[in-house]
Amino acid sequence: MLVNGAPGDSISASDRGLAYGDGIYRTLEARHGTPLLWHWQWQRLAADCAALRLPCPDEALLLREIASVAARLERAVVKIVLTRGSGQRGYAMPAACSPTRIVSASAWGGYPPERAQQGIVARWCDTRLAIQPWLAGIKHLNRLENVLARSEWTDPVIAEGLMLDMDGTVVEGTMSNLFIVRAGELITPLLDRCGVSGAMRACVIDTAANLGLHVREARLSPDEVMAADEAFVCNSLAGIWPLRQLAARQWPPGALTRRLQQLL
Amino acid sequence: MLVNGAPGDSISASDRGLAYGDGIYRTLEARHGTPLLWHWQWQRLAADCAALRLPCPDEALLLREIASVAARLERAVVKIVLTRGSGQRGYAMPAACSPTRIVSASAWGGYPPERAQQGIVARWCDTRLAIQPWLAGIKHLNRLENVLARSEWTDPVIAEGLMLDMDGTVVEGTMSNLFIVRAGELITPLLDRCGVSGAMRACVIDTAANLGLHVREARLSPDEVMAADEAFVCNSLAGIWPLRQLAARQWPPGALTRRLQQLL
Repeated sequence: MLVNGAPGDSISASDRGLAYGDGIYRTLEARHGTPLLWHWQWQRLAADCAALRLPCPDEALLLREIASVAARLERAVVKIVLTRGSGQRGYAMPAACSPTRIVSASAWGGYPPERAQQGIVARWCDTRLAIQPWLAGIKHLNRLENVLARSEWTDPVIAEGLMLDMDGTVVEGTMSNLFIVRAGELITPLLDRCGVSGAMRACVIDTAANLGLHVREARLSPDEVMAADEAFVCNSLAGIWPLRQLAARQWPPGALTRRLQQLL
Repeated sequence: MLVNGAPGDSISASDRGLAYGDGIYRTLEARHGTPLLWHWQWQRLAADCAALRLPCPDEALLLREIASVAARLERAVVKIVLTRGSGQRGYAMPAACSPTRIVSASAWGGYPPERAQQGIVARWCDTRLAIQPWLAGIKHLNRLENVLARSEWTDPVIAEGLMLDMDGTVVEGTMSNLFIVRAGELITPLLDRCGVSGAMRACVIDTAANLGLHVREARLSPDEVMAADEAFVCNSLAGIWPLRQLAARQWPPGALTRRLQQLL
């Protein structure tokens, strides 16, 4: 682990990342120190920094640090955390911001392959996502809603929980983005009011475009998801997991889902 | 500063308090190591732990640690942070939780006394609070909304910003709770959908009860606040600050506000 470029595994207890969740993060896979999906990870990270007015680190520096922590690992989970650093007491952003940059890696064997092959069982979460357009899409450090949602089940058969917003619109999984296929059209929830705009989501949208498929971002009801022809969740570590079962609904693996899996 | 009872000023970079804001905090004043408003602070801290299913530390232990960090300071700001500690990657709460407890103190001269004496100038914030009943009232570590709201102004004349929720209902100040007086009645925003239930708010409610005054918790519109006979904000460090000016509205110091200030 590197903290501001130096080996270390701790941060100041007065860091604003701890005090207020005043920062962002990305989790990604690296192979022998090379991050996967970097184009999209970097795009999202830079956008999130801009949205929170956090100084964005240099791309080359981040790549060097990822290589440094993950080079000796064939397959690693890399986590990047950027915070607004320490400051005076109080919510006001410090005039001179000294951000904290944490880059860490751990060896990783991957998720069980049957999740991608056979699809997963998912559930609907009771915990709702608050509607907050000011923070929508950003992978920030305020993630208590996800923690509460993920605490709703312990059954290891259930790999993911889907979340609605306060209006009852479908948003995402606790740790993934959702896509459905309906009459040949690929649709994913609009993330303008809440949710995390994941790197894999962006990659799926671009990959579909290369197939000549426009992904429509829309407000989806739970009924529309249940009535979909195909459904899958995705994130940077999981890739694409077809939904095999959601509550009482079951799906066979869908053709478009399989095609996207092959292309990624 | 004490981290889990031992002198230190850092925490693990993999703490869930940093990763997800998975924890709570309190900020309070201590005099020679004795915390003020402790009855209410402890009540709120224990309630917040229960709400997030965080193990609550022993009260006597916390008091010893506060005394330890603040004993040599005539007047100190004490901050208590409790997190769910480190755990495996992912949102799921660890089966065996080893919480992190941070108790820190710093010398403090108090806010400028004219804020309590003459009242403050406040503004309306554009940043809205999301409606999230699952987290309402809890002083948790997900405070990006407050950070964004506080970043809206730099004018030192403005001491506080009042925040509305997504429905346009008045909730609180960025770092304080709000009370208004209307026709002799004391009213404070209901915090069942968002906002922080502060220790000073609870103390004001109890103090008013001792005067035979029932505080009504209600949904208030900005117009109702502007039309109030008196208005004040409060928190544990500030005590009570009368609102002297809010946008174009001005108030002279109100009789009930003054009476509550004297009693606290």
